[in-house]
Amino acid sequence: MGKNVAEKLIESHLADGTLSVGEEISLTMDQTLTQDATGTMVMLEFEAMGIPRVQTELSAQYVDHNLIQSDFKNPDDHLFLRSACKKFGVWYSRPGNGVSHPVHQERFGKPGKTLIGSDSHTPAAGALGMLAIGAGGLDVAMAMAGKPYTIRMPEIWGVKLTGELPDWVSAKDVILEMLRRHDVDGGVNRIIEYYGPGLDTLSCMDRHVIANMGTELGATSTVFPSDEEVKRFLRSQGREDDWREVRADADADYDVYEEIDLSELVPLIAKPSSPGNVVPVREVEGQEIYQSYVGSSANPGFRDFAVAAEIVDGKQVHDRVSWDINPTSRQILENLMNTGHLQMLTRSGGRIHQAGCNGCIGMGQAPATGRIALRTVPRNFPGRSGTKEDAVYLVSPETAAASALTGKITDPRDLEEIYGMSYPHVQEPEEITINTDQLVEPPSAEEAEDLELEKGPNVVSLPEFAPLPDALDVPVLLKVGDDVSTDEIMPAGSRILPYRSNIPEISKFVFEQVDETFYDRAMEHQENGFAIVAGSNYGQGSSREHAAIAPRYLGTRVKIVESFARIHRQNLANFGILPLMFKDPADHEKIEQGDTLQLRNLRETIQDGSTVEVYNATKDETYVTEHDLSERELEMVLEGSQISVVKKEFTDARA
Amino acid sequence: MGKNVAEKLIESHLADGTLSVGEEISLTMDQTLTQDATGTMVMLEFEAMGIPRVQTELSAQYVDHNLIQSDFKNPDDHLFLRSACKKFGVWYSRPGNGVSHPVHQERFGKPGKTLIGSDSHTPAAGALGMLAIGAGGLDVAMAMAGKPYTIRMPEIWGVKLTGELPDWVSAKDVILEMLRRHDVDGGVNRIIEYYGPGLDTLSCMDRHVIANMGTELGATSTVFPSDEEVKRFLRSQGREDDWREVRADADADYDVYEEIDLSELVPLIAKPSSPGNVVPVREVEGQEIYQSYVGSSANPGFRDFAVAAEIVDGKQVHDRVSWDINPTSRQILENLMNTGHLQMLTRSGGRIHQAGCNGCIGMGQAPATGRIALRTVPRNFPGRSGTKEDAVYLVSPETAAASALTGKITDPRDLEEIYGMSYPHVQEPEEITINTDQLVEPPSAEEAEDLELEKGPNVVSLPEFAPLPDALDVPVLLKVGDDVSTDEIMPAGSRILPYRSNIPEISKFVFEQVDETFYDRAMEHQENGFAIVAGSNYGQGSSREHAAIAPRYLGTRVKIVESFARIHRQNLANFGILPLMFKDPADHEKIEQGDTLQLRNLRETIQDGSTVEVYNATKDETYVTEHDLSERELEMVLEGSQISVVKKEFTDARA
Repeated sequence: MGKNVAEKLIESHLADGTLSVGEEISLTMDQTLTQDATGTMVMLEFEAMGIPRVQTELSAQYVDHNLIQSDFKNPDDHLFLRSACKKFGVWYSRPGNGVSHPVHQERFGKPGKTLIGSDSHTPAAGALGMLAIGAGGLDVAMAMAGKPYTIRMPEIWGVKLTGELPDWVSAKDVILEMLRRHDVDGGVNRIIEYYGPGLDTLSCMDRHVIANMGTELGATSTVFPSDEEVKRFLRSQGREDDWREVRADADADYDVYEEIDLSELVPLIAKPSSPGNVVPVREVEGQEIYQSYVGSSANPGFRDFAVAAEIVDGKQVHDRVSWDINPTSRQILENLMNTGHLQMLTRSGGRIHQAGCNGCIGMGQAPATGRIALRTVPRNFPGRSGTKEDAVYLVSPETAAASALTGKITDPRDLEEIYGMSYPHVQEPEEITINTDQLVEPPSAEEAEDLELEKGPNVVSLPEFAPLPDALDVPVLLKVGDDVSTDEIMPAGSRILPYRSNIPEISKFVFEQVDETFYDRAMEHQENGFAIVAGSNYGQGSSREHAAIAPRYLGTRVKIVESFARIHRQNLANFGILPLMFKDPADHEKIEQGDTLQLRNLRETIQDGSTVEVYNATKDETYVTEHDLSERELEMVLEGSQISVVKKEFTDARA
Repeated sequence: MGKNVAEKLIESHLADGTLSVGEEISLTMDQTLTQDATGTMVMLEFEAMGIPRVQTELSAQYVDHNLIQSDFKNPDDHLFLRSACKKFGVWYSRPGNGVSHPVHQERFGKPGKTLIGSDSHTPAAGALGMLAIGAGGLDVAMAMAGKPYTIRMPEIWGVKLTGELPDWVSAKDVILEMLRRHDVDGGVNRIIEYYGPGLDTLSCMDRHVIANMGTELGATSTVFPSDEEVKRFLRSQGREDDWREVRADADADYDVYEEIDLSELVPLIAKPSSPGNVVPVREVEGQEIYQSYVGSSANPGFRDFAVAAEIVDGKQVHDRVSWDINPTSRQILENLMNTGHLQMLTRSGGRIHQAGCNGCIGMGQAPATGRIALRTVPRNFPGRSGTKEDAVYLVSPETAAASALTGKITDPRDLEEIYGMSYPHVQEPEEITINTDQLVEPPSAEEAEDLELEKGPNVVSLPEFAPLPDALDVPVLLKVGDDVSTDEIMPAGSRILPYRSNIPEISKFVFEQVDETFYDRAMEHQENGFAIVAGSNYGQGSSREHAAIAPRYLGTRVKIVESFARIHRQNLANFGILPLMFKDPADHEKIEQGDTLQLRNLRETIQDGSTVEVYNATKDETYVTEHDLSERELEMVLEGSQISVVKKEFTDARA
């Protein structure tokens, strides 16, 4: 039996396990990717392990999240990261150089390789025929230390693309169609692999769009083959030598099948406040908008800006519309200037922002109260824009540009009638300008030996986490429903992101938008701990490990839910929070916030089997729950955190 | 006797008074300028007066300060301003369109006209041969209502320029030389008028640099003649018809004389934390820098960016240096792209920010803790950058670019030796691209009649201020020294600026950097009021009226100081805070924070004469103080605020 692309990538990196769905497998990681919001913590974790240099083929650190610099904290973090990169042997992509995912694709991604990144959109690199996985910061620190990364073997979901996209429909509509069909949990425990003749019409950056937002489906990763288009892309980046072919065998099969006829797609839109709320643009057209926003890792390519530019060329956006242009890399910015596209965007009313993540992660560009914002970003979780009562819709650059002109949600196909416009088929320039100057190569190990880490006052050591006690007698401090995202657990945004390397400070914002009293109530129970109860798909969204570390610091010892999102569950185990699932999901309804839960003989119980009984002392009821912790994960929970485990290993090795 | 430019401008707009130094004169105002940080309040004030449309020849509202949009507040303000502009008949310069001063110069400034602006750098327009004055927001609202603006006739300070600037020295060094000679109060109660043969070598935007920072000298305004260069500038902007000649008569004289031989100037630098701490760059060269920043209204021109671009062209800035590029207008941004200069800046490592005020007013781009930032901005007051322990130096674009390359404070003349570089004499392109599309013209009065103001939840009505009581028995809640700036009284920055249209909220930040307990202590005394005691030049710097409104809201009834900065004193009177000055400056030392002061028979006393006795009940001492309130100002203080006066006028007129 032939192999598909995902299987080939997994097999060639298999350190442990077999390719049976659901079994644990360990994969060697060739590359790591960190961004600044998660990277400061990764570097502190790496430092704590005492290993002098990274053990990967390539590690790259991007500064793309915290660019606003309202005070000393962001710039202090940048200087810390710069010093850590030099010391540990990591490439440093300077502030203003762009969003990690497109820059990594342009400069470092290689077909056939594996990549682990402390950013949930890391799978974007699957566009190059890599296996790229988003993970918690600690997992990335472990990969930097040369340790394989362990997951359960996912199903491989083959999505066959046929036909060709109609005018005014683009790659974003392909992934929105997947979300329309399967919602935000349709890809859980799956790797999505695209194949079929439709691929020929999708450029490498189009594939990036689709791979990037596979994360919104809950997928472990998304892969594309490395074909002639990948070769063309790498050649255009001056990296043809990095190309190798990675294709599925002719007789490869998949665990699950899907087909999309590209020619039947229409412009789609995800309504507030979930990427899964997808409908045709037609269904919501005509509503007045406040903002139209292009950029982000979900539409990062030259084409995405250029097509928007050609749509607005010679016209003015509606005078109510904030037309926010967010270049995704310094290189794309420079090319857009050279081709005149940035001038078109500027002249039409564009507000040209620094290359970076910006408003996509709530760092500025928040919409007005209750007003509609159209964005090409990957996510529209509630409050992520920075405005609590926001109304963010996810769209293609075509829909964003068309709506910017009219001031209303507009199907871009209507531009033909409104302006007599024909669809601008954008061609990338044959010769692009390559800009690698702001990617700083680390010095040699010898040169780095005497370098010091530069720690400003906001870069503070990790708190120590105590081992799991044998008995818990804890209140349910918070009860929430389904699909709670890490944005709700640990919000981002300009007020909060600067504290990513300061756990006591950032913990003040945990669950702030869900329950303003949470922090104060948590601090009352910090010593003895507390439980959190939730519904299904708990912890979806961003991979931020702070959504585990900060609640842990506040005293969370156990989370009992119907089901966990994959990365968040891993983060909980890494930081010693016991992740339990109800055997009977109906039990979720029986528990109330404030109930006291008792767990007894806990250390032995979780090692003996997967079943854990939880006694509700308030209601006098017992619920049966289970854990699915591997032996490795069990050790972390018992010791208090994975860092405690590694520390112990090192101590034992030295002894 | 012939007349100088300043006298001609004053005479042609004199509504009341005579041109005797120190006498009150009233001037009709042809134009008004507001920016968003002060403009929301101006619009609320204008609304409170009940006048349907502005009475000026031209009023323009710019959105340049609060561009970050961390949440709903900034965008709500933008929508409010947009609606107010349409309703009241004001041009609206949309966010991203640039800094008010250069945009106003490009689009609206006219030789021979008067301009009042709620921004302290409004005098920049003096570059066109206008009389342009910075004032409190309320004064601008009054001018919008057609009322003349009243000041005391200043001295006219003639500064004769001879010679020609050497290579590597530019307009910024001229105004830094003025500050080196005369410090931050050298221009108080003066209008600075530049004349002489040296003018021929200074472009209109060079003159803008010099006029802009006349504010840092404490000057009432700065004027240049309207000559052939102004004609050339207006022609390049497609506005030759707006030109008229305004020159001093051949036999004009000045109250004070000064001369600068341009050929003798060297690159200068203002050390932290005052624009008056000027020394040659040579004296501080070699220190490591963290940031190099170009842009702001103090170096806004095409030339300023282009010369920096040509210096760094083909090179990379030092990898420690944050190279922050802040285009000052959409038009300049577009021209810099067309000439390739923005590409040079990008490629050298530039972080290209949105056109606007940005880091100059602490909206992002804060430097790292204790690290040196070189900036072409007009001010380096402590903490204004957003970082409490900052070290901001003011420089020319040449010095900024040179230092960005070396990573150290560098005299740009050294580039000849370091890089074999010769000075790039930048020529503006003969044909510039004009971009007026984002300046929104207001609809006609008829069309505007039914428009509603759009007030988001953060736009709140003005508090009402009670009349002055006849007796005060108040504690000295705060005692401070000399040169306290409005940045210290009412800080700006990204956390605070969004509350400019919400007095109760913004008041929480008053004196925050001087005394963290101030707000809490003030709230305890809000009902009965309190006094503040200070040294000389109290309230220097930014014109923000919030530095009067917010302390007034908290309970400040009287300020007793050695001397006041002009605009701030006016703001105090406007909002009913009694501004008193010690007859004997030595009395300042005798009062301690916490002392109780008693003022008796106050309403009659201040109307009867200028002397006011202040009894210190704690020390059992009496101090003689005086006020210099005009009759008009007396009425405001007695009624509680100028708004109360106008309200009363309207009520009386209706009765």
